[in-house]
Amino acid sequence: MPDAPEQRDRHQTVTSETIEVLKNRRSIRKYADDPVTDAMVEVILEAAFRAPTSSNLQAYSVIQVRDPDTRAKLAAVGGNQQHIIDCPLFLAFCADLTRIEAAFQKNGHDLSDNNMELGLVATIDAALVGMSTYLAADSLGIRGVMIGAMRNDPEAVAEILGLPDRVYVVFGMCLGYPAEAPKQKPRMPKSGMIHHERYDLEAALAAMAAYDPDLRAHYDAIGKDTTDDSWSHDVHAKFSKRPRDHLRAALKKRGFDFT
Amino acid sequence: MPDAPEQRDRHQTVTSETIEVLKNRRSIRKYADDPVTDAMVEVILEAAFRAPTSSNLQAYSVIQVRDPDTRAKLAAVGGNQQHIIDCPLFLAFCADLTRIEAAFQKNGHDLSDNNMELGLVATIDAALVGMSTYLAADSLGIRGVMIGAMRNDPEAVAEILGLPDRVYVVFGMCLGYPAEAPKQKPRMPKSGMIHHERYDLEAALAAMAAYDPDLRAHYDAIGKDTTDDSWSHDVHAKFSKRPRDHLRAALKKRGFDFT
Repeated sequence: MPDAPEQRDRHQTVTSETIEVLKNRRSIRKYADDPVTDAMVEVILEAAFRAPTSSNLQAYSVIQVRDPDTRAKLAAVGGNQQHIIDCPLFLAFCADLTRIEAAFQKNGHDLSDNNMELGLVATIDAALVGMSTYLAADSLGIRGVMIGAMRNDPEAVAEILGLPDRVYVVFGMCLGYPAEAPKQKPRMPKSGMIHHERYDLEAALAAMAAYDPDLRAHYDAIGKDTTDDSWSHDVHAKFSKRPRDHLRAALKKRGFDFT
Repeated sequence: MPDAPEQRDRHQTVTSETIEVLKNRRSIRKYADDPVTDAMVEVILEAAFRAPTSSNLQAYSVIQVRDPDTRAKLAAVGGNQQHIIDCPLFLAFCADLTRIEAAFQKNGHDLSDNNMELGLVATIDAALVGMSTYLAADSLGIRGVMIGAMRNDPEAVAEILGLPDRVYVVFGMCLGYPAEAPKQKPRMPKSGMIHHERYDLEAALAAMAAYDPDLRAHYDAIGKDTTDDSWSHDVHAKFSKRPRDHLRAALKKRGFDFT
Protein backbone atom coordinates (compact mmCIF):
# COMPACT_ATOMS: atom_id res chain seq x y z
CA MET A 1 0.00 0.00 0.00
CA PRO A 2 1.50 3.36 -0.96
CA ASP A 3 2.04 5.93 1.76
CA ALA A 4 -0.41 8.77 2.17
CA PRO A 5 0.97 11.87 0.38
CA GLU A 6 1.75 13.61 3.63
CA GLN A 7 3.73 10.65 4.89
CA ARG A 8 5.60 10.25 1.63
CA ASP A 9 6.69 13.86 1.92
CA ARG A 10 7.99 13.23 5.38
CA HIS A 11 10.13 10.33 4.21
CA GLN A 12 11.56 12.38 1.37
CA THR A 13 12.42 15.32 3.61
CA VAL A 14 15.41 13.82 5.31
CA THR A 15 17.34 17.01 5.64
CA SER A 16 16.83 20.58 6.78
CA GLU A 17 18.84 23.72 7.39
CA THR A 18 19.36 22.67 11.02
CA ILE A 19 20.60 19.24 10.00
CA GLU A 20 22.96 20.76 7.43
CA VAL A 21 24.27 23.20 10.05
CA LEU A 22 25.04 20.23 12.30
CA LYS A 23 26.54 18.08 9.55
CA ASN A 24 28.86 20.91 8.47
CA ARG A 25 29.78 21.98 11.98
CA ARG A 26 33.40 22.35 12.99
CA SER A 27 35.03 24.42 15.68
CA ILE A 28 36.25 27.78 14.38
CA ARG A 29 39.07 29.62 16.11
CA LYS A 30 39.96 32.29 13.51
CA TYR A 31 37.49 35.05 12.68
CA ALA A 32 36.87 37.78 10.12
CA ASP A 33 36.80 41.35 11.45
CA ASP A 34 33.04 41.66 10.90
CA PRO A 35 31.37 42.42 14.20
CA VAL A 36 28.63 40.37 15.82
CA THR A 37 26.33 43.16 16.94
CA ASP A 38 24.41 43.31 20.21
CA ALA A 39 21.21 43.17 18.14
CA MET A 40 22.34 39.87 16.58
CA VAL A 41 23.26 38.48 19.98
CA GLU A 42 19.79 39.31 21.30
CA VAL A 43 18.09 37.53 18.40
CA ILE A 44 20.28 34.47 18.90
CA LEU A 45 19.96 34.31 22.68
CA GLU A 46 16.25 35.04 22.74
CA ALA A 47 15.76 32.01 20.48
CA ALA A 48 18.20 29.89 22.51
CA PHE A 49 16.36 30.68 25.74
CA ARG A 50 13.45 28.64 24.33
CA ALA A 51 15.53 25.48 24.88
CA PRO A 52 13.86 23.01 27.24
CA THR A 53 14.56 23.63 30.93
CA SER A 54 13.82 21.05 33.60
CA SER A 55 10.82 22.00 35.80
CA ASN A 56 10.91 25.45 34.15
CA LEU A 57 13.84 26.31 36.44
CA GLN A 58 15.69 28.44 33.86
CA ALA A 59 18.78 27.92 35.98
CA TYR A 60 21.17 29.63 33.58
CA SER A 61 22.43 33.02 32.55
CA VAL A 62 24.74 34.32 29.86
CA ILE A 63 27.42 36.98 30.13
CA GLN A 64 28.46 38.77 26.98
CA VAL A 65 32.08 39.92 27.19
CA ARG A 66 33.62 42.47 24.80
CA ASP A 67 36.09 44.32 27.05
CA PRO A 68 39.70 43.47 26.00
CA ASP A 69 41.04 43.45 29.57
CA THR A 70 38.37 41.01 30.68
CA ARG A 71 39.06 38.87 27.62
CA ALA A 72 42.77 38.80 28.42
CA LYS A 73 42.06 37.68 31.97
CA LEU A 74 39.67 34.96 30.78
CA ALA A 75 42.23 33.79 28.21
CA ALA A 76 44.82 33.48 30.98
CA VAL A 77 42.45 31.16 32.88
CA GLY A 78 41.69 29.27 29.68
CA GLY A 79 45.23 28.10 28.95
CA ASN A 80 46.06 31.19 26.85
CA GLN A 81 43.73 30.31 23.99
CA GLN A 82 44.29 33.31 21.71
CA HIS A 83 40.79 33.06 20.18
CA ILE A 84 39.30 34.06 23.54
CA ILE A 85 41.00 37.43 23.00
CA ASP A 86 40.51 37.64 19.22
CA CYS A 87 36.89 36.54 18.71
CA PRO A 88 34.34 39.26 17.93
CA LEU A 89 32.05 37.91 20.66
CA PHE A 90 32.67 35.93 23.82
CA LEU A 91 29.77 34.45 25.79
CA ALA A 92 29.98 32.77 29.18
CA PHE A 93 27.21 30.22 29.84
CA CYS A 94 26.50 30.01 33.54
CA ALA A 95 24.73 27.49 35.73
CA ASP A 96 22.78 29.89 37.91
CA LEU A 97 20.95 29.10 41.16
CA THR A 98 20.64 32.79 42.14
CA ARG A 99 16.95 33.15 41.35
CA ILE A 100 16.19 29.74 42.83
CA GLU A 101 17.83 30.76 46.08
CA ALA A 102 15.85 34.03 46.02
CA ALA A 103 12.66 31.96 45.64
CA PHE A 104 13.73 29.90 48.64
CA GLN A 105 14.53 33.03 50.64
CA LYS A 106 11.05 34.44 49.90
CA ASN A 107 9.80 31.30 51.61
CA GLY A 108 12.15 31.39 54.59
CA HIS A 109 14.82 28.99 53.34
CA ASP A 110 18.11 29.07 51.50
CA LEU A 111 20.06 26.71 49.25
CA SER A 112 22.71 25.62 51.72
CA ASP A 113 23.65 21.96 51.17
CA ASN A 114 22.08 21.82 47.68
CA ASN A 115 22.23 18.41 46.09
CA MET A 116 23.66 16.68 43.01
CA GLU A 117 20.34 16.96 41.17
CA LEU A 118 20.20 20.75 41.51
CA GLY A 119 23.84 21.05 40.44
CA LEU A 120 23.28 18.82 37.42
CA VAL A 121 19.99 20.46 36.42
CA ALA A 122 21.62 23.90 36.34
CA THR A 123 24.64 22.53 34.46
CA ILE A 124 22.42 20.76 31.91
CA ASP A 125 20.22 23.87 31.54
CA ALA A 126 23.29 25.95 30.68
CA ALA A 127 24.47 23.27 28.25
CA LEU A 128 21.10 23.15 26.45
CA VAL A 129 21.02 26.93 26.07
CA GLY A 130 24.67 26.95 25.00
CA MET A 131 24.10 24.32 22.32
CA SER A 132 21.01 26.16 21.08
CA THR A 133 22.98 29.40 20.94
CA TYR A 134 25.76 27.74 19.00
CA LEU A 135 23.36 26.33 16.38
CA ALA A 136 21.27 29.50 16.13
CA ALA A 137 24.48 31.48 15.53
CA ASP A 138 25.76 28.99 12.97
CA SER A 139 22.47 29.21 11.08
CA LEU A 140 23.32 32.91 10.57
CA GLY A 141 26.87 32.16 9.46
CA ILE A 142 28.39 32.90 12.87
CA ARG A 143 30.63 30.11 14.07
CA GLY A 144 33.01 29.42 16.88
CA VAL A 145 34.16 27.11 19.59
CA MET A 146 33.02 26.15 23.07
CA ILE A 147 35.56 26.82 25.82
CA GLY A 148 35.42 24.16 28.54
CA ALA A 149 38.63 25.63 29.93
CA MET A 150 36.54 28.14 31.89
CA ARG A 151 36.34 25.19 34.34
CA ASN A 152 40.12 25.39 34.81
CA ASP A 153 39.53 27.86 37.61
CA PRO A 154 35.89 28.63 38.42
CA GLU A 155 36.84 30.95 41.27
CA ALA A 156 39.09 33.11 39.09
CA VAL A 157 36.39 33.25 36.40
CA ALA A 158 33.84 34.26 39.03
CA GLU A 159 36.10 37.07 40.20
CA ILE A 160 36.68 38.30 36.64
CA LEU A 161 32.98 38.31 35.75
CA GLY A 162 31.66 39.44 39.14
CA LEU A 163 29.59 36.30 39.63
CA PRO A 164 27.50 36.12 42.78
CA ASP A 165 27.42 33.01 44.95
CA ARG A 166 25.61 30.03 43.34
CA VAL A 167 26.74 30.83 39.79
CA TYR A 168 29.54 29.16 37.83
CA VAL A 169 30.60 29.22 34.19
CA VAL A 170 29.92 25.78 32.64
CA PHE A 171 31.64 26.77 29.40
CA GLY A 172 32.48 29.84 27.38
CA MET A 173 31.93 30.34 23.66
CA CYS A 174 33.96 32.26 21.09
CA LEU A 175 31.86 33.42 18.12
CA GLY A 176 32.45 35.29 14.89
CA TYR A 177 32.33 35.00 11.12
CA PRO A 178 34.84 32.29 10.17
CA ALA A 179 38.22 33.09 8.61
CA GLU A 180 39.31 29.47 8.40
CA ALA A 181 37.82 26.26 7.01
CA PRO A 182 39.31 23.40 8.99
CA LYS A 183 38.84 19.78 7.97
CA GLN A 184 36.11 18.10 9.92
CA LYS A 185 37.35 15.60 12.50
CA PRO A 186 35.91 12.09 12.16
CA ARG A 187 33.52 10.81 14.83
CA MET A 188 33.19 7.33 16.35
CA PRO A 189 31.21 5.04 14.02
CA LYS A 190 27.55 5.42 14.89
CA SER A 191 27.17 1.62 15.07
CA GLY A 192 28.72 1.84 18.53
CA MET A 193 26.95 5.03 19.62
CA ILE A 194 23.33 4.18 18.79
CA HIS A 195 21.97 1.17 20.67
CA HIS A 196 18.65 -0.56 20.11
CA GLU A 197 16.48 -1.53 23.07
CA ARG A 198 19.48 -2.38 25.28
CA TYR A 199 23.08 -1.22 25.52
CA ASP A 200 25.44 -3.28 23.35
CA LEU A 201 28.85 -3.20 25.04
CA GLU A 202 30.56 -5.18 22.29
CA ALA A 203 29.40 -2.65 19.67
CA ALA A 204 30.50 0.27 21.86
CA LEU A 205 34.03 -1.10 22.20
CA ALA A 206 34.24 -2.15 18.54
CA ALA A 207 33.46 1.45 17.56
CA MET A 208 36.41 2.63 19.61
CA ALA A 209 38.76 0.08 18.04
CA ALA A 210 37.61 1.16 14.57
CA TYR A 211 37.98 4.83 15.46
CA ASP A 212 41.59 4.77 16.61
CA PRO A 213 43.04 4.38 13.07
CA ASP A 214 40.43 6.81 11.64
CA LEU A 215 41.54 9.55 13.97
CA ARG A 216 45.22 8.82 13.36
CA ALA A 217 44.59 9.11 9.60
CA HIS A 218 42.87 12.46 10.19
CA TYR A 219 45.79 13.75 12.24
CA ASP A 220 48.21 12.61 9.53
CA ALA A 221 46.09 14.37 6.87
CA ILE A 222 46.17 17.69 8.71
CA GLY A 223 49.84 17.31 9.70
CA LYS A 224 49.19 17.20 13.43
CA ASP A 225 51.97 16.18 15.79
CA THR A 226 52.35 12.39 15.71
CA THR A 227 52.34 12.13 19.49
CA ASP A 228 48.56 12.29 18.95
CA ASP A 229 48.62 8.76 17.68
CA SER A 230 45.05 7.65 18.35
CA TRP A 231 41.95 8.39 20.37
CA SER A 232 42.65 5.84 23.07
CA HIS A 233 46.23 7.07 23.47
CA ASP A 234 45.19 10.72 23.64
CA VAL A 235 42.36 10.11 26.09
CA HIS A 236 44.58 8.18 28.47
CA ALA A 237 47.46 10.65 28.15
CA LYS A 238 45.24 13.62 28.89
CA PHE A 239 42.82 12.27 31.49
CA SER A 240 45.22 10.09 33.48
CA LYS A 241 46.62 13.45 34.67
CA ARG A 242 43.21 14.08 36.27
CA PRO A 243 42.68 17.54 34.74
CA ARG A 244 40.60 20.00 36.79
CA ASP A 245 40.92 17.78 39.82
CA HIS A 246 40.05 20.68 42.14
CA LEU A 247 36.73 21.28 40.35
CA ARG A 248 34.57 19.74 43.05
CA ALA A 249 36.13 21.93 45.75
CA ALA A 250 35.99 25.02 43.51
CA LEU A 251 32.31 24.49 42.68
CA LYS A 252 31.53 23.98 46.35
CA LYS A 253 33.07 27.40 47.03
CA ARG A 254 30.83 28.77 44.26
CA GLY A 255 27.80 27.41 46.15
CA PHE A 256 27.23 24.15 44.26
CA ASP A 257 27.47 21.35 46.84
CA PHE A 258 26.72 18.35 44.58
CA THR A 259 25.88 16.35 47.71
CA MET B 1 29.48 55.40 6.10
CA PRO B 2 27.14 52.75 4.69
CA ASP B 3 27.86 49.09 5.41
CA ALA B 4 29.54 46.95 2.78
CA PRO B 5 26.88 44.96 0.85
CA GLU B 6 27.87 41.70 2.52
CA GLN B 7 27.59 43.20 5.98
CA ARG B 8 24.25 44.80 5.19
CA ASP B 9 22.93 41.39 4.24
CA ARG B 10 24.09 39.97 7.51
CA HIS B 11 22.21 42.59 9.44
CA GLN B 12 19.04 41.94 7.48
CA THR B 13 19.24 38.17 7.94
CA VAL B 14 18.17 38.06 11.54
CA THR B 15 16.29 34.81 11.32
CA SER B 16 16.76 31.30 10.00
CA GLU B 17 14.99 27.94 10.06
CA THR B 18 16.95 26.99 13.18
CA ILE B 19 15.99 30.22 14.94
CA GLU B 20 12.33 29.74 13.98
CA VAL B 21 12.44 26.14 15.26
CA LEU B 22 13.71 27.45 18.58
CA LYS B 23 11.28 30.37 18.77
CA ASN B 24 8.33 28.06 18.11
CA ARG B 25 9.53 25.27 20.39
CA ARG B 26 7.25 23.84 23.02
CA SER B 27 7.23 20.45 24.72
CA ILE B 28 4.89 18.00 22.98
CA ARG B 29 3.40 15.07 24.88
CA LYS B 30 0.68 13.89 22.45
CA TYR B 31 1.61 12.39 19.11
CA ALA B 32 0.07 11.40 15.78
CA ASP B 33 0.29 7.71 14.85
CA ASP B 34 2.84 8.38 12.09
CA PRO B 35 5.98 6.44 12.82
CA VAL B 36 9.45 7.89 13.21
CA THR B 37 11.43 5.35 11.19
CA ASP B 38 14.86 3.98 12.05
CA ALA B 39 16.14 5.68 8.88
CA MET B 40 14.90 9.05 10.16
CA VAL B 41 16.48 8.42 13.55
CA GLU B 42 19.83 7.69 11.91
CA VAL B 43 19.73 10.93 9.90
CA ILE B 44 18.86 12.91 13.02
CA LEU B 45 21.42 11.27 15.31
CA GLU B 46 24.22 11.28 12.78
CA ALA B 47 23.77 15.05 12.51
CA ALA B 48 23.46 15.44 16.29
CA PHE B 49 26.71 13.53 16.86
CA ARG B 50 28.48 16.49 15.22
CA ALA B 51 27.76 18.54 18.35
CA PRO B 52 30.92 19.82 20.02
CA THR B 53 32.46 17.36 22.51
CA SER B 54 35.10 18.41 25.01
CA SER B 55 38.60 17.08 24.14
CA ASN B 56 36.93 14.90 21.47
CA LEU B 57 35.87 12.54 24.27
CA GLN B 58 32.50 11.63 22.68
CA ALA B 59 31.47 10.48 26.15
CA TYR B 60 27.87 9.76 25.21
CA SER B 61 25.66 7.12 23.69
CA VAL B 62 21.99 6.91 22.73
CA ILE B 63 19.60 4.03 23.23
CA GLN B 64 16.56 3.86 20.97
CA VAL B 65 13.66 2.11 22.72
CA ARG B 66 10.59 0.82 20.89
CA ASP B 67 9.68 -2.29 22.90
CA PRO B 68 6.39 -1.71 24.81
CA ASP B 69 7.50 -3.67 27.89
CA THR B 70 10.68 -1.64 28.18
CA ARG B 71 8.68 1.56 27.70
CA ALA B 72 6.28 0.56 30.46
CA LYS B 73 9.17 -0.07 32.84
CA LEU B 74 10.79 3.27 31.97
CA ALA B 75 7.46 5.06 32.43
CA ALA B 76 7.16 3.51 35.90
CA VAL B 77 10.56 4.98 36.82
CA GLY B 78 9.56 8.30 35.23
CA GLY B 79 6.57 9.02 37.47
CA ASN B 80 4.13 7.27 35.13
CA GLN B 81 4.38 9.82 32.35
CA GLN B 82 2.05 8.26 29.77
CA HIS B 83 3.88 9.84 26.83
CA ILE B 84 6.90 7.62 27.59
CA ILE B 85 4.65 4.70 26.61
CA ASP B 86 2.72 6.44 23.83
CA CYS B 87 5.42 8.27 21.87
CA PRO B 88 6.47 6.79 18.52
CA LEU B 89 10.13 7.03 19.53
CA PHE B 90 11.91 7.07 22.87
CA LEU B 91 15.60 7.90 23.11
CA ALA B 92 17.78 7.64 26.20
CA PHE B 93 20.79 10.00 26.20
CA CYS B 94 23.61 8.50 28.22
CA ALA B 95 26.75 9.91 29.78
CA ASP B 96 29.15 7.14 28.82
CA LEU B 97 32.67 6.58 30.17
CA THR B 98 32.86 2.99 28.82
CA ARG B 99 35.19 3.73 25.94
CA ILE B 100 37.27 6.08 28.07
CA GLU B 101 37.77 3.34 30.63
CA ALA B 102 38.70 0.91 27.81
CA ALA B 103 41.31 3.44 26.67
CA PHE B 104 42.66 3.58 30.22
CA GLN B 105 42.70 -0.24 30.45
CA LYS B 106 44.69 -0.43 27.20
CA ASN B 107 47.27 1.62 29.06
CA GLY B 108 47.20 -0.32 32.33
CA HIS B 109 44.80 1.87 34.30
CA ASP B 110 41.09 2.10 35.06
CA LEU B 111 38.64 4.86 35.94
CA SER B 112 38.25 4.14 39.63
CA ASP B 113 37.85 7.35 41.62
CA ASN B 114 37.00 9.45 38.55
CA ASN B 115 36.53 13.12 39.28
CA MET B 116 33.88 15.84 39.01
CA GLU B 117 35.31 17.08 35.71
CA LEU B 118 34.94 13.70 34.02
CA GLY B 119 31.40 13.30 35.36
CA LEU B 120 30.42 16.78 34.19
CA VAL B 121 32.10 16.43 30.79
CA ALA B 122 30.17 13.25 30.05
CA THR B 123 26.92 14.80 31.32
CA ILE B 124 27.43 17.94 29.23
CA ASP B 125 28.39 15.85 26.17
CA ALA B 126 25.11 13.94 26.45
CA ALA B 127 23.20 17.20 26.91
CA LEU B 128 24.77 18.78 23.81
CA VAL B 129 23.93 15.74 21.69
CA GLY B 130 20.44 15.59 23.18
CA MET B 131 19.74 19.24 22.42
CA SER B 132 21.09 18.83 18.88
CA THR B 133 18.88 15.77 18.39
CA TYR B 134 15.85 17.65 19.63
CA LEU B 135 16.40 20.55 17.23
CA ALA B 136 17.31 18.32 14.26
CA ALA B 137 14.10 16.34 14.85
CA ASP B 138 12.01 19.50 15.20
CA SER B 139 13.40 20.82 11.91
CA LEU B 140 11.76 17.74 10.30
CA GLY B 141 8.45 18.30 12.09
CA ILE B 142 9.20 15.74 14.81
CA ARG B 143 8.68 17.16 18.28
CA GLY B 144 8.63 15.94 21.82
CA VAL B 145 9.78 16.39 25.35
CA MET B 146 12.92 15.74 27.36
CA ILE B 147 12.47 13.37 30.31
CA GLY B 148 14.68 14.36 33.23
CA ALA B 149 12.75 11.83 35.33
CA MET B 150 15.12 9.13 34.12
CA ARG B 151 17.26 10.49 36.98
CA ASN B 152 14.57 9.43 39.46
CA ASP B 153 16.26 6.04 39.68
CA PRO B 154 19.46 5.65 37.63
CA GLU B 155 20.02 2.12 38.88
CA ALA B 156 16.57 0.92 37.79
CA VAL B 157 17.03 2.58 34.40
CA ALA B 158 20.43 0.89 34.06
CA GLU B 159 18.86 -2.48 34.79
CA ILE B 160 16.05 -1.92 32.27
CA LEU B 161 18.41 -0.81 29.48
CA GLY B 162 21.27 -3.19 30.29
CA LEU B 163 23.73 -0.37 30.90
CA PRO B 164 27.28 -1.38 31.75
CA ASP B 165 29.19 0.22 34.58
CA ARG B 166 30.18 3.89 33.93
CA VAL B 167 27.02 4.72 31.93
CA TYR B 168 23.96 6.61 33.19
CA VAL B 169 20.94 8.15 31.47
CA VAL B 170 21.15 11.95 31.75
CA PHE B 171 17.69 12.36 30.24
CA GLY B 172 15.26 10.58 27.97
CA MET B 173 13.38 12.06 25.05
CA CYS B 174 9.90 11.31 23.69
CA LEU B 175 9.56 12.13 19.98
CA GLY B 176 6.81 11.98 17.37
CA TYR B 177 4.70 14.10 15.04
CA PRO B 178 2.66 16.43 17.26
CA ALA B 179 -1.05 15.90 17.92
CA GLU B 180 -1.38 18.92 20.19
CA ALA B 181 -0.48 22.60 19.98
CA PRO B 182 0.06 23.82 23.53
CA LYS B 183 0.45 27.48 24.35
CA GLN B 184 4.06 28.48 24.76
CA LYS B 185 5.09 29.13 28.37
CA PRO B 186 6.63 32.56 28.98
CA ARG B 187 10.33 32.79 29.88
CA MET B 188 12.11 35.07 32.33
CA PRO B 189 12.66 38.52 30.75
CA LYS B 190 15.97 38.42 28.94
CA SER B 191 17.05 41.66 30.65
CA GLY B 192 17.89 39.52 33.68
CA MET B 193 19.35 36.56 31.77
CA ILE B 194 21.82 38.36 29.48
CA HIS B 195 24.54 40.25 31.30
CA HIS B 196 27.10 42.62 29.81
CA GLU B 197 30.75 42.39 30.87
CA ARG B 198 29.89 41.51 34.49
CA TYR B 199 27.01 39.74 36.22
CA ASP B 200 24.26 42.15 37.27
CA LEU B 201 22.59 40.64 40.34
CA GLU B 202 19.98 43.38 40.58
CA ALA B 203 18.83 42.70 37.01
CA ALA B 204 18.77 38.93 37.63
CA LEU B 205 16.48 39.33 40.64
CA ALA B 206 14.31 41.96 38.94
CA ALA B 207 13.70 39.49 36.11
CA MET B 208 12.41 36.96 38.60
CA ALA B 209 10.10 39.49 40.24
CA ALA B 210 8.71 40.44 36.82
CA TYR B 211 8.31 36.81 35.83
CA ASP B 212 6.18 35.67 38.77
CA PRO B 213 3.01 37.46 37.56
CA ASP B 214 3.74 36.54 33.92
CA LEU B 215 3.78 32.86 34.78
CA ARG B 216 0.69 33.15 36.93
CA ALA B 217 -1.13 34.83 34.02
CA HIS B 218 -0.04 31.98 31.75
CA TYR B 219 -1.30 29.36 34.19
CA ASP B 220 -4.60 31.23 34.46
CA ALA B 221 -4.88 31.38 30.66
CA ILE B 222 -4.42 27.63 30.27
CA GLY B 223 -6.62 26.82 33.28
CA LYS B 224 -3.84 25.23 35.31
CA ASP B 225 -4.39 24.50 38.99
CA THR B 226 -4.08 27.73 40.94
CA THR B 227 -1.78 26.15 43.51
CA ASP B 228 0.82 26.92 40.83
CA ASP B 229 0.65 30.55 41.73
CA SER B 230 4.04 31.77 40.57
CA TRP B 231 7.51 30.68 39.62
CA SER B 232 9.05 31.43 43.01
CA HIS B 233 6.27 29.56 44.80
CA ASP B 234 6.53 26.53 42.50
CA VAL B 235 10.31 26.35 42.67
CA HIS B 236 10.36 26.47 46.45
CA ALA B 237 7.48 23.99 46.76
CA LYS B 238 9.13 21.48 44.47
CA PHE B 239 12.81 21.78 45.33
CA SER B 240 12.52 22.27 49.09
CA LYS B 241 11.55 18.57 49.06
CA ARG B 242 15.06 17.87 47.70
CA PRO B 243 13.94 15.73 44.76
CA ARG B 244 16.34 12.99 43.62
CA ASP B 245 18.31 13.37 46.81
CA HIS B 246 19.87 9.91 46.35
CA LEU B 247 21.27 10.86 42.93
CA ARG B 248 24.85 11.26 44.10
CA ALA B 249 24.88 7.78 45.68
CA ALA B 250 23.10 6.25 42.68
CA LEU B 251 25.55 7.76 40.20
CA LYS B 252 28.46 6.55 42.31
CA LYS B 253 27.06 3.02 42.01
CA ARG B 254 26.88 3.60 38.23
CA GLY B 255 30.61 4.37 38.27
CA PHE B 256 30.52 8.18 38.34
CA ASP B 257 32.38 9.29 41.46
CA PHE B 258 32.13 13.09 41.04
CA THR B 259 35.03 13.41 43.51
